[in-house]
Amino acid sequence: MPHAHPTDDPARPAAGDPAEPHAWAVREGPLDLSRLEQVESLFALSNGRTGVRGGLEEGAPAGAPGTYLSGAHEVWPMTYPEYSYGYPKVQERLVQVPDATRVELFVAGERLDVRTGELTDHQRVLDLRSGTLQRHVRWTSPAGHRVVVDSERLVPLDRPGLLALDYVVRAVDEPLEVEVRSALVASEQLHGTVTSARHRGGALRQRTDGSGLAVAAHVEHDVVGPAGTEVRTHASADRVVTSARVRLAAGEALRVTKTVALGWAGQAERDELDAELAGLLTDGVREGWDRLRRQQRAVLDEFWTHADVVVDGDDELQQAVRFALFHVFQAAAQGTDRGIPAKGLTGTGYDGHTFWDTEVFVMPMLNHVWPEAAADALRWRHRMLPAARARARELGLAGATFPWRTITGRESSGYWPAGTAAVHLNADIADAAVRYLHATGDEELAREAVVDLVVETARSWVVLGREDAQGRFHVDGVTGPDEYSALVDDNAYTNLMAQANLRAAIELAGRFPEQARALGVTDEELAGFARLADAVHVPRDPETGVHAQDEGSTQRKRWDFEGTAPEQYPLADSFPYFSLYRSQVVKQADLVLAMHLRPEAFTWEEKRNAFEYYEELTVRDSSLSAAVQAVLAAEVGHLALAADYAHEAAFVDLHDLRGKTADGLHIASLAGAWLALVAGYGGMRDADGVLAFAPRLPEGLRGLRFRARHRGSCLEVSVTGDEVRYTVVDGEPVQASHHGQGFTVGPEEAVVLAVPPLPEDVLSRPRPRQPAGRGPRRRR
Amino acid sequence: MPHAHPTDDPARPAAGDPAEPHAWAVREGPLDLSRLEQVESLFALSNGRTGVRGGLEEGAPAGAPGTYLSGAHEVWPMTYPEYSYGYPKVQERLVQVPDATRVELFVAGERLDVRTGELTDHQRVLDLRSGTLQRHVRWTSPAGHRVVVDSERLVPLDRPGLLALDYVVRAVDEPLEVEVRSALVASEQLHGTVTSARHRGGALRQRTDGSGLAVAAHVEHDVVGPAGTEVRTHASADRVVTSARVRLAAGEALRVTKTVALGWAGQAERDELDAELAGLLTDGVREGWDRLRRQQRAVLDEFWTHADVVVDGDDELQQAVRFALFHVFQAAAQGTDRGIPAKGLTGTGYDGHTFWDTEVFVMPMLNHVWPEAAADALRWRHRMLPAARARARELGLAGATFPWRTITGRESSGYWPAGTAAVHLNADIADAAVRYLHATGDEELAREAVVDLVVETARSWVVLGREDAQGRFHVDGVTGPDEYSALVDDNAYTNLMAQANLRAAIELAGRFPEQARALGVTDEELAGFARLADAVHVPRDPETGVHAQDEGSTQRKRWDFEGTAPEQYPLADSFPYFSLYRSQVVKQADLVLAMHLRPEAFTWEEKRNAFEYYEELTVRDSSLSAAVQAVLAAEVGHLALAADYAHEAAFVDLHDLRGKTADGLHIASLAGAWLALVAGYGGMRDADGVLAFAPRLPEGLRGLRFRARHRGSCLEVSVTGDEVRYTVVDGEPVQASHHGQGFTVGPEEAVVLAVPPLPEDVLSRPRPRQPAGRGPRRRR
Repeated sequence: MPHAHPTDDPARPAAGDPAEPHAWAVREGPLDLSRLEQVESLFALSNGRTGVRGGLEEGAPAGAPGTYLSGAHEVWPMTYPEYSYGYPKVQERLVQVPDATRVELFVAGERLDVRTGELTDHQRVLDLRSGTLQRHVRWTSPAGHRVVVDSERLVPLDRPGLLALDYVVRAVDEPLEVEVRSALVASEQLHGTVTSARHRGGALRQRTDGSGLAVAAHVEHDVVGPAGTEVRTHASADRVVTSARVRLAAGEALRVTKTVALGWAGQAERDELDAELAGLLTDGVREGWDRLRRQQRAVLDEFWTHADVVVDGDDELQQAVRFALFHVFQAAAQGTDRGIPAKGLTGTGYDGHTFWDTEVFVMPMLNHVWPEAAADALRWRHRMLPAARARARELGLAGATFPWRTITGRESSGYWPAGTAAVHLNADIADAAVRYLHATGDEELAREAVVDLVVETARSWVVLGREDAQGRFHVDGVTGPDEYSALVDDNAYTNLMAQANLRAAIELAGRFPEQARALGVTDEELAGFARLADAVHVPRDPETGVHAQDEGSTQRKRWDFEGTAPEQYPLADSFPYFSLYRSQVVKQADLVLAMHLRPEAFTWEEKRNAFEYYEELTVRDSSLSAAVQAVLAAEVGHLALAADYAHEAAFVDLHDLRGKTADGLHIASLAGAWLALVAGYGGMRDADGVLAFAPRLPEGLRGLRFRARHRGSCLEVSVTGDEVRYTVVDGEPVQASHHGQGFTVGPEEAVVLAVPPLPEDVLSRPRPRQPAGRGPRRRR
Repeated sequence: MPHAHPTDDPARPAAGDPAEPHAWAVREGPLDLSRLEQVESLFALSNGRTGVRGGLEEGAPAGAPGTYLSGAHEVWPMTYPEYSYGYPKVQERLVQVPDATRVELFVAGERLDVRTGELTDHQRVLDLRSGTLQRHVRWTSPAGHRVVVDSERLVPLDRPGLLALDYVVRAVDEPLEVEVRSALVASEQLHGTVTSARHRGGALRQRTDGSGLAVAAHVEHDVVGPAGTEVRTHASADRVVTSARVRLAAGEALRVTKTVALGWAGQAERDELDAELAGLLTDGVREGWDRLRRQQRAVLDEFWTHADVVVDGDDELQQAVRFALFHVFQAAAQGTDRGIPAKGLTGTGYDGHTFWDTEVFVMPMLNHVWPEAAADALRWRHRMLPAARARARELGLAGATFPWRTITGRESSGYWPAGTAAVHLNADIADAAVRYLHATGDEELAREAVVDLVVETARSWVVLGREDAQGRFHVDGVTGPDEYSALVDDNAYTNLMAQANLRAAIELAGRFPEQARALGVTDEELAGFARLADAVHVPRDPETGVHAQDEGSTQRKRWDFEGTAPEQYPLADSFPYFSLYRSQVVKQADLVLAMHLRPEAFTWEEKRNAFEYYEELTVRDSSLSAAVQAVLAAEVGHLALAADYAHEAAFVDLHDLRGKTADGLHIASLAGAWLALVAGYGGMRDADGVLAFAPRLPEGLRGLRFRARHRGSCLEVSVTGDEVRYTVVDGEPVQASHHGQGFTVGPEEAVVLAVPPLPEDVLSRPRPRQPAGRGPRRRR
């Protein structure tokens, strides 16, 4: 019988020293029952449509196992002690769908349970190149029977709805009666379970009550074992179990390969769901485990060709950034008609909702490494446009107002200062759409979605803002990115993003006149956009001239950081909004994020002054901060600090820096790891459609290599010490800039340029201080 | 048998033309089944401890009948879609206690129901001098039997816990078998009902589940009827019924007089409750109906001696202002250890919670007409001080932070911009305490409560505010009185009230050093208070210099009043907070209230300019506005407008101007009617401890007479045309001022002064405009 796993695979559990970070794999050390939930998140597999947490096949012990289908949600009533107009009355939550990963093993009648008998070896590996989760177990049952189990699972990145699991059990040193029971288990969060069985598989169907969805799973097995292997399937009330039973000779193995098709459908498409899944399953079975595994590897090879970031001099960071890239890809790979949730499909944190994270953190990376996924994310937002227009009308606004958190497009925030006032989200969406267009030149999607998104969001500012007597344009009473402020006037981030939104609308209306006409855009409207954009007010401190996060913010009372104990963080768990909002204390990059997304709106000195000012106030009670602080720290010459923030972003989940990894991974922070290295160390900017670089490595790093796709080409940037090598590895010549100097590089010849030294006054500048105890959390 | 009602009583149902407003009574016209709930509120009786809505004795038809005991509440969990630190988890709500007003009548076996048979006469009268609700019914049963029923009820204003009801049925023209069934009926909102019966009465006991209160009612009856009248009492699962049965000859009557003692007790005092109520009941029975009625009249005679406001030239307003005074007195009469809820005990609107209304609207009136009740209200707040200190600690503040809405002293607001940010409440409490002290000179209560309240609230401002580089004192991020703004910086009202709070603390600490020492007040602390008070910043519009409600508010977008349809009011039911807060639109007097409570902080011109500015923005979606607008309108010379606002305040419930009278009366607005006449037309101010007057009557009013108690004296102010007559009717001479000129009036001789004419430029000033459709609602 062929062994399931090629022995030359470097990620193979048995190989290498688990204490050393593997460049292409993440290994679990000895099984730690106290970290089950966290590891389930780290080892989650997903293609953006189907997500499976990395639980043990036998189902127990377990942390918070779960299988999720993007968009498969239930609705709950939202009630308020004091309801007010516009509050959403229904909350959407991602639900667990049937568990298809369950495989129980009985050895001479004893059930495999890692807590019983003797576990002589237990290894799990997330292989970042094969895109599989592998497990190797050597177990002696309480009665003394020894088996070796090797399992591997994958969620095909190119086939939404499929899941495959390969399970091999081997008798070690004696003949053994073994039974493998592979199950589809109904979700306790769903209802109306109907099961059916065939010879080697079956189907299970459930439904949601409130949201009216049908959820189904179809399963089929391949069984390879010695002669006499008995296979049968039994459907009970809440599960479909296929069991394979045989007496193995010493050294002999039983292999069960499970292929599953999972899906859901709304009212309209319910009837087609089973036929669709049956077809999907047939295709998957026809391909077979080995081909599915090879295809998965091929998809990832293609991904890594464009996405890989090579870090020379920090093996741990190297592993972390690849882990990060892998999970962002998993979250986004098959987004087509769903959003990318804050936790991907790795857990139910934030109820499976999608926030602005997608547009501000994830899409800017995808644009350059896997623009197809960025396009999917854009199409999803575009599909939400009718709901966003309706919400704008409901709120008495104009154009479109997108939901702060959502699964299907309706607002699911029960906190109105987020759910209605965080209007920057609209400009963020426009910004991401424009960046996508700059990065790809994809005029087809511009016509299909980008123009609509940019124009409709631009329209909101006309109603949201006001012109003062001097003609300056203000936006009052909004919530910016920093969640420790709310309902502020002239949030600099919001105003600058609104300005870009208005200007992009003008530009796109000119470039795509047919779309603009369809939207009813007039010359007068565009003239209004231009007038407002030119008049946007950006507040500053009246004394020092430093940029203010919002009007008057620099004059507020500073938070009493010295009087705040470490256990009082995150502050929102220990202090009321009332106290936080009225003080100078910043949860997450806000003005600093403005400097990242609107770099041209600030001089270098303004950036440095503002960065240093906000370092003293920023407590990073959000994971959406470290990466942006890394980028700006690098830009203003605080390279050691940039490195520390880059690490915090990259290790957020591997080192569980926020203590929340159990609920799912921080997808935006993981995308931020890429951002910290590429936009931070690499100094890459893409706001105006031309790639700009300003590479500079922090101390201790010998080299950095990354690639960026840009309008059909692919540019490689390789930094070694003080030298940068720009190469076009694919496509047409690329125009770019290096530390402010323009250059063109073609496919024939690399361009090699030197990193200019940092001026002495920059080098000698003291490292900015953070609030007491709130410096970057560098490593565990 | 003596008739129950003295026939010379002008309020007697049968007398007079019901279409004419009676000066001392409010009559219901023909019974209108669609207005039952509203009339139940208007005809509610209360002494501040026990409240009974004015329902029909027979219990059906009914609107939303109810009997309430001040403080008898249940708790409910408060859940939030997105909980945050400091949100209250428990909400208190006033509950219905057992109904003791129920009296059913059977006439030859047919139950009296006004919807059956023929109702030839039905009159109800709330008598404002006797303090009783009277009813006169002539009914022909479906079988053709005729009876006359006269009933009258009272809730003794000087005996907390008692209720008495007198019920007389008379056979008209034939012998009739009648049965009167007088019941105590268990409340459906309470649990664990236990009943017991005696010969002519019994008891009923219930409990609340969450708040752990015992609630009980004891009842006894006097029955006077022809020989053969049978009386017995039966206790069933949910009621105690005493029935009196007899065959009446034509013209004969059966009279049942019911005396009830009602009360509740917490865990600790449960065991004493029944003994206490039994004693109370015995006292009540010993007094008997006629004495109770005479005492009620005596209490009210005493009240009207000080409180009456005589309006010459507007009979409807005369009735309305007496109705208003009566209900405020009812709400406050026996406050001792409970707050005065926004609706008194006339309904369950606002869940029976007490707000700032007490201190800002009710106490300023009580101080001058019934200071004993103002003292009770102060004592109640003082009893809440430990809870307010604990809340301040919980919120990271200093001193005391009182709850926005409460029954027992804990915060019951589920909306944090009110429940934590409306800190003006603390200064409002201090202000009311200081006014009380000024008005009464009650140094005993100063030592007991006023100093504590003023100093502890003053301490909160030290933490709430900040000093800027120029030494100015600011308070950021608070919610002022106007609920269509929130989380604003430098709310002028809040800052000016904080200033007064700080200064009062300094003054009181000097006057009562022992109390100050007990509070740990130091000279340094007082010096800090003084520095901050002197530096308080009061914002203005940078262009026009007009006072701004809060920093920057005059620069916000004006609400689109023209684009707002009448049915979109109240605006909070049609627009999100997000839109309201960011616009110039004022729900209720805010800066105008500051000008009322801190008159010396503005010049007359500043008041006029600000008043006119805010008239254009104020939509009065709150009942806490018209009275204050009346006062300021009068002060700045817009007398016709003042009259219209005075009417709106006075008629709020009689004409159901807010459509909410069914839920209970608007006690603060009713107190505002007094305010509008006394502080508006009479120009009375008392902020600095000296009574100031500036009487001026609006067109159409021939005269106005009111009295004001002041430090043991009682001053009468009688305005007739352009002449004002000041008389001390009781006590020592009083120093006061008349239109800015000081004078002293003693008990020997009246002082008669002329009203100075308004200057031409004031007279010719156009009437200020209100937002479209939001002018004063003058009459129904």
